[in-house]
Amino acid sequence: MSKQDDIFKKVIAHSKEYGYVFPSSEIYDGLGAIYDYGQYGVELKNNIKQYWWKAMVQLNENIVGLDSAIFMAPKIWKASGHVDNFNDPMIDNKDSKKRYRADNLIEDKAQQYEKKGKTDKAAKLIADMEECISKGNLQGLKALIEEHEIVDETGSKNWTDVRQFNLMFSTQMGSVAESSDETYLRPETAQGIFVNFLNVQKTSRQKIPFGIAQIGKAFRNEIVARQFLFRMREFEQMEMQYFVRPGEEMKWYEHWKEKRMKWHLSLGIDAGKYRFHDHANLAHYANAAADIEYEFPFGFKEVEGIHSRTDFDLKRHQEFSGKKMQYFDPEINQNYIPYVVETSIGADRMLLLTLINAFEEETLPDNSVRTVLRIPPILAPIKVALLPLMKKDGLGEKARAIFDELKYSFMCQYDEKDAIGKRYRRQDAIGTPYCITIDHQTLEDETVTIRFRDTMEQKRIPINGILGTIREELDMDALLKKI
Amino acid sequence: MSKQDDIFKKVIAHSKEYGYVFPSSEIYDGLGAIYDYGQYGVELKNNIKQYWWKAMVQLNENIVGLDSAIFMAPKIWKASGHVDNFNDPMIDNKDSKKRYRADNLIEDKAQQYEKKGKTDKAAKLIADMEECISKGNLQGLKALIEEHEIVDETGSKNWTDVRQFNLMFSTQMGSVAESSDETYLRPETAQGIFVNFLNVQKTSRQKIPFGIAQIGKAFRNEIVARQFLFRMREFEQMEMQYFVRPGEEMKWYEHWKEKRMKWHLSLGIDAGKYRFHDHANLAHYANAAADIEYEFPFGFKEVEGIHSRTDFDLKRHQEFSGKKMQYFDPEINQNYIPYVVETSIGADRMLLLTLINAFEEETLPDNSVRTVLRIPPILAPIKVALLPLMKKDGLGEKARAIFDELKYSFMCQYDEKDAIGKRYRRQDAIGTPYCITIDHQTLEDETVTIRFRDTMEQKRIPINGILGTIREELDMDALLKKI
Repeated sequence: MSKQDDIFKKVIAHSKEYGYVFPSSEIYDGLGAIYDYGQYGVELKNNIKQYWWKAMVQLNENIVGLDSAIFMAPKIWKASGHVDNFNDPMIDNKDSKKRYRADNLIEDKAQQYEKKGKTDKAAKLIADMEECISKGNLQGLKALIEEHEIVDETGSKNWTDVRQFNLMFSTQMGSVAESSDETYLRPETAQGIFVNFLNVQKTSRQKIPFGIAQIGKAFRNEIVARQFLFRMREFEQMEMQYFVRPGEEMKWYEHWKEKRMKWHLSLGIDAGKYRFHDHANLAHYANAAADIEYEFPFGFKEVEGIHSRTDFDLKRHQEFSGKKMQYFDPEINQNYIPYVVETSIGADRMLLLTLINAFEEETLPDNSVRTVLRIPPILAPIKVALLPLMKKDGLGEKARAIFDELKYSFMCQYDEKDAIGKRYRRQDAIGTPYCITIDHQTLEDETVTIRFRDTMEQKRIPINGILGTIREELDMDALLKKI
Repeated sequence: MSKQDDIFKKVIAHSKEYGYVFPSSEIYDGLGAIYDYGQYGVELKNNIKQYWWKAMVQLNENIVGLDSAIFMAPKIWKASGHVDNFNDPMIDNKDSKKRYRADNLIEDKAQQYEKKGKTDKAAKLIADMEECISKGNLQGLKALIEEHEIVDETGSKNWTDVRQFNLMFSTQMGSVAESSDETYLRPETAQGIFVNFLNVQKTSRQKIPFGIAQIGKAFRNEIVARQFLFRMREFEQMEMQYFVRPGEEMKWYEHWKEKRMKWHLSLGIDAGKYRFHDHANLAHYANAAADIEYEFPFGFKEVEGIHSRTDFDLKRHQEFSGKKMQYFDPEINQNYIPYVVETSIGADRMLLLTLINAFEEETLPDNSVRTVLRIPPILAPIKVALLPLMKKDGLGEKARAIFDELKYSFMCQYDEKDAIGKRYRRQDAIGTPYCITIDHQTLEDETVTIRFRDTMEQKRIPINGILGTIREELDMDALLKKI
């Protein structure tokens, strides 16, 4: 196992042990590629969402929010192209009855060749596969699988033909007896913004350029969902669609690339862990696209996409709905369909990034090892732990009294169990940035010890200074001003 | 049209006109009983959710959060009883091909009798219907429909038999080729808490009594969805399940009834608009249940339910999953399956309540009428509007400079269009509690006018006093201390 694999496994185990992420339906042996957020995971996720929302909606006079439903009129997915084009090439094994993505099977085979030093063979296989995919040649994909004698996980090479498999989940919405409508769970949140473009523009009285931001769930019936929170069947997106004058989209595309990278870096993550990846092959609706990638243990991978989507979406909705999607621009006295620049970040991927980036097994001067989650304090689930040195002598009561003062301002935790050192380690593992210890001296002079997670430094401060100290440490304004 | 109907229609129209609620997929002629939240609706909803979360999770040492997925293992809905029992009796009209809830058709008929003064006939019909429902007598329901010559909206009385129709949305999760699993969209969030009970209890080290709180979407394939946001197919719940020692559930049931009512009243809504409704007929899993009802324009209706669910759910999951759902109670040295007291509030209903309660057409001393949303300031989407008296003379720049100072703390809006009086009205209609007007005097002495939505009172205050004044007005701690 490589060191990186090792770290990834540790983060997954740590997430479960410390109440960040549980496999969904675990007592029923789980559900593939679906996860539940535990008591710390939900706080971390809420904090990430809030930080994004503040940065996008609260700070920008010309960006407003939206919360569109998961269910949308089926025709929307015709217009967007998802009914016809949102497919993966799938192949079934006749013996094991298991289904696979044909391209993944071929990629895995190519990796095997590479490991054996057959680099040329691997490269040719990938090139052949890409040609088949670009031409929609499903028979060609099957031929490659047969030619290279690819077997499934049970060792069988008894394959069906390759077929296209739509990634949307469908369901019946039963309002009419004999023709209950097939409806889809949205595979992306963006269309909810596009179809509301005029509703929002008119009622918010925004002028172009302006943006609509949204956080919400999306669903994709991924067959091979991998890498923990990285590719899930049910996931959450944070998206902003920015409507601009045609011809000005590249200016705004560059603007948002820069802005969004600043948002990431404002959280104090090493810039070397981030990079842009400009798309060479553009989607049919885009005229420019870049990913913000983070170096996960499994390589540089997309966390966020910035796409210049042109007028493709609004135009299609105008065509399919028969409703004009035009904007009258008073500055140039013209009607037009706006162009759109999109920024789209996976909330779950951002959470995974935060956990991986925060996780550290730190060797201390005495050679002991502490596990610490160095989560940016502003995102940490619990901000303050109140730890009475002991329960008796009124220390427990005093600690609870302080808890009751601080709880209106911060997520706090009270813990009186085990030795104080063990409790510090527990808070380190949860990622709590500040521990307040209440001891006998507290009863005499109204002071406590504040201990900082990252440095383990301890300082004596007065009780009535706790609130101010932590507020100063958690200064969100200062972070937001960096964006 | 009654005055109450009138108000309800006005609130619906106002919600759309001012960007609170849009019909989902409106440009495609909508989708039944699904709504999208516009730029102010999403802020109001977020504020409601945040106020609930703070009151439940942040203030209570022994309540922690959770965010479980919408998709869960299908067997969970077997265990919970939803696969077998979560049905409505439906009947189809053979001519119009429309589907109806049989009980709703009968109730509507009874109402018609009442309107005509045939009170006895109405009462007997309802009684007969209730007997059929309690005995699962579907043929009896059909017989009533025929006997009373009930017609559908097209006038036809050509009916099919009555059948049970499950309210869950189902979909296929395709991981295995020939047996892709039928999965459901959760019809409630509670089961996500129950199946994670031990995961959360162990990793959070909570002792009984303790609670798990969750906010999330649920889905019900309602056939007759009515009354705007009141009964939707896709909706959001805010739930807390409180795990207690068996035998102590009634104490906690009373505790939470009281606590939850205090939460509602802390928002300043007239107590006369609220009442408890204790359930006479309990669900099979409950040993006590009450609703908190609010007087909507269409009558007193449930906003929140407090249910004592006994050990029904955990026991069923123990049985169906084969995993022990027991808790070891160190205080009494015993193992047991905890009892559960649930508080469950509809986020969308709470939002509807807030809008309805806030909406007022106020006749002013000069006999003009202003439409104002008296939303509790802590929940208001926009807290502060910055209004330069005019754009020129540097007043616009000055207003924007103040906007840029306040935006880190509050959702602000900048508006320079139209006369100041018209802008005040616009902010009243959005529900913005504080307007700041910047005029020529501002440039001379660094003071502004603050105008209060509810009283329309105006006061001159220094610019550097704005932040403090509004912070004081918006004191969430003070509200939370009332709970």
